[in-house]
Amino acid sequence: MAIQSVVLKTIYVGTFIHSVSLAELQVLKRSAVAVDESGKILLVEHPVEASMLEMWAKEAGTTIVEAGPGQFFFPGLIDTHIHASQYPNSGIFGKSTLLDWLNTYTFPSKLPSRNPAYYATRDVTSTNILATTCHTAGQRAFVGRCCMDCMAPDYYRDTDAATSLADTIKCAEFCAKLDPKGELVQSIITPRFAPSCSRELMRDLGDFMAQSGLLCQTHISENKGEIELVASLFPECKNYATVYDRAGLLSEKTVLAHAVHLTDDEIALVKMRGSKISHCPVSNAALTSGAAKVRRLLDEGIVVGLGTDVSGGYSPSVLEAARQATMTSRFVSLTEGEEAKLSVEEALYLATRGGAEVLGLQKTVGAFEVGMEWDALLVGCTFVPDEEECDEDEDLLQAKQAVGGGMTPVDLFGWENWEEMVAKWLYSGDDRNVLKVWVKGRKVHEKPA
Amino acid sequence: MAIQSVVLKTIYVGTFIHSVSLAELQVLKRSAVAVDESGKILLVEHPVEASMLEMWAKEAGTTIVEAGPGQFFFPGLIDTHIHASQYPNSGIFGKSTLLDWLNTYTFPSKLPSRNPAYYATRDVTSTNILATTCHTAGQRAFVGRCCMDCMAPDYYRDTDAATSLADTIKCAEFCAKLDPKGELVQSIITPRFAPSCSRELMRDLGDFMAQSGLLCQTHISENKGEIELVASLFPECKNYATVYDRAGLLSEKTVLAHAVHLTDDEIALVKMRGSKISHCPVSNAALTSGAAKVRRLLDEGIVVGLGTDVSGGYSPSVLEAARQATMTSRFVSLTEGEEAKLSVEEALYLATRGGAEVLGLQKTVGAFEVGMEWDALLVGCTFVPDEEECDEDEDLLQAKQAVGGGMTPVDLFGWENWEEMVAKWLYSGDDRNVLKVWVKGRKVHEKPA
Repeated sequence: MAIQSVVLKTIYVGTFIHSVSLAELQVLKRSAVAVDESGKILLVEHPVEASMLEMWAKEAGTTIVEAGPGQFFFPGLIDTHIHASQYPNSGIFGKSTLLDWLNTYTFPSKLPSRNPAYYATRDVTSTNILATTCHTAGQRAFVGRCCMDCMAPDYYRDTDAATSLADTIKCAEFCAKLDPKGELVQSIITPRFAPSCSRELMRDLGDFMAQSGLLCQTHISENKGEIELVASLFPECKNYATVYDRAGLLSEKTVLAHAVHLTDDEIALVKMRGSKISHCPVSNAALTSGAAKVRRLLDEGIVVGLGTDVSGGYSPSVLEAARQATMTSRFVSLTEGEEAKLSVEEALYLATRGGAEVLGLQKTVGAFEVGMEWDALLVGCTFVPDEEECDEDEDLLQAKQAVGGGMTPVDLFGWENWEEMVAKWLYSGDDRNVLKVWVKGRKVHEKPA
Repeated sequence: MAIQSVVLKTIYVGTFIHSVSLAELQVLKRSAVAVDESGKILLVEHPVEASMLEMWAKEAGTTIVEAGPGQFFFPGLIDTHIHASQYPNSGIFGKSTLLDWLNTYTFPSKLPSRNPAYYATRDVTSTNILATTCHTAGQRAFVGRCCMDCMAPDYYRDTDAATSLADTIKCAEFCAKLDPKGELVQSIITPRFAPSCSRELMRDLGDFMAQSGLLCQTHISENKGEIELVASLFPECKNYATVYDRAGLLSEKTVLAHAVHLTDDEIALVKMRGSKISHCPVSNAALTSGAAKVRRLLDEGIVVGLGTDVSGGYSPSVLEAARQATMTSRFVSLTEGEEAKLSVEEALYLATRGGAEVLGLQKTVGAFEVGMEWDALLVGCTFVPDEEECDEDEDLLQAKQAVGGGMTPVDLFGWENWEEMVAKWLYSGDDRNVLKVWVKGRKVHEKPA
């Protein structure tokens, strides 16, 4: 086991929990993950021997980062659908549904002027500011200028298809300069949704997609009124998915948000094209869009990730999206049967490996595997002292003496195993349980003391 | 306006927001609420003049508590259904539904032995410890020993109906000694639910209810399997509600948790008896119980409050219950129509005045009215500096210079009106937005600095 000290930069030590399949979370206790200077995972040692840790600790230039007792490392959570510019509007949607929500809360001019920002606005400058902000913060992001040349109010619409394409290309060029290898930030082609795009614009964007190799994101089949609108606007297409397909916008590089009411034909088409789905349960409940049948999509072999869809969704937390994905799946199961339910493991798979695959990053992030990059959270909960009983797990015994995460909304009593701890985190956790965040090996957030 | 200084103890000054009807939240800006030493509201002055505040400030023994800019007072939120002893299990339910959840997670012996404590356990001592704990903390609580003389595992069952009644009476006597006037803590008669109570026990508890004047709480019609079980156990009753009614347990002092699948006949019976409903949306989604038709109950004139139902529900937050009540109502509206949706105002009414009326406290708490008691929260959000634009509201202008609530999950940008601030609090808020809590005029919680 000869590893060059020049290569090993940081060694993370402790318990690592990640998805190894849709149904299974693996718990790697007393393990180590070695990460090089570029943020790449070189080694996953499970379990790690004390002698090896000692040897590493002596090597020059190597930092050891240990999880505290009861804490665990978890892959970074991935949001596959968020409208950054709408964040200030979070929670303000009244009893609206999609189309009136857009007109009442989303399009009004105060919003784009207020927010220089994922889905950016339709403004080139603010879209580029968002890309720069993400890059400077060390965050991964696909940033798309929102294309819309019809059906939106005049003040919030591209002049014509040509201008819309030209502005999209400007944004793509900006990102290519900002991050030439696309290591963190990339541009993403973003027709808002079929009703606000002309056929010409969609075809132009489809061509640009084929030519540039960029990903594309849009909305599909969120709401019944929207579906009827699409049917009336595109009578030549037999369904919503076909509208995108005819424009060359359905490929394995396409991220389709919502997909609540897809027909069998559409599911078959999406599957054939290899397009991916961003499931947005909080938004779909809040705007009464319906309950997406995620199990059906997964059973078809379609790749699914989670989206917060702020501000159709009221929370920017992917943990909340995962939690609500399990709740929505229970409402689905009332009519579709028991097997529709998503488990804790499945919801967290969608939030990590699922999201990574939606964005074509399945070899880069989403788990702790050699060759992937170190995108990770350190998660901690609050230990409530209890002298009487305890488990046999040494880490947890130790944890009882320490305070894993300070004040958090997740209370542990010492008898929980790791799986139960993860369930508690999913159902009661929030940002207070996230003690540190790394992206591509760089620490981008630490919880204030 | 001659108010004796001996009477006025504390004067709260700032913005007060409370329900004046199911559909309407009233915003009292620049107002004052005067509270006497016993915690009773003597005066609601709206708006309050500066000269009056100056006069009060000079009176000996009077304290003035001012809300900061952008902060507001809100009536204390009321949880009408929580199993205190199950709190450590929050978030641990897998894919279970009611009956298997009870057997797998809830009844196992480690729980009662681990937790000396609402719904307490079936143990007299631990029930009384819970009552004492609430009383010492200055919290209001109805604490009930959980009665169950059948259908539960041996280790978690009362020996027989007579013992069950005797133990219930012991707990009632304990509370009567602890808090003779029942100003904060009262005992509540608590048959767990029909399947775990013999006819004899329920009749005995019904008699005790009539004789003691105490409230009664139990579960009803949570889950279809449970309903079938009740039908098979009580073939002489035409429905679930009738089981309780025959035992004399349905009265205007009865709190029925869940009521997800009540039939028309049962709704009519519940209405006739004046019994109240505790709606538990988080639990009903988590355990796939179904979606209670709250609008129907409200339209019938039945009183409804909210319950967290920990740990069937994974969150002890009534704000989360209110939030999920709006989400569940949207799932209901998918089949029952638009009018099923609950608004922000309605959800917060259920969390305050609705809950108060469920517990017979409608003249005591739930709003800011003369003669009620000062049960209140001070709510603050986080202001995000924005130099460009602002509103005309002076309080909000000031707020932009200050930080309303420190670090909270609710970001304000300065353009929100009070109604929008409340919506943001409902949908994004948590305990970090609660800066102070008073019960009966006494401060029982303050957010750590």
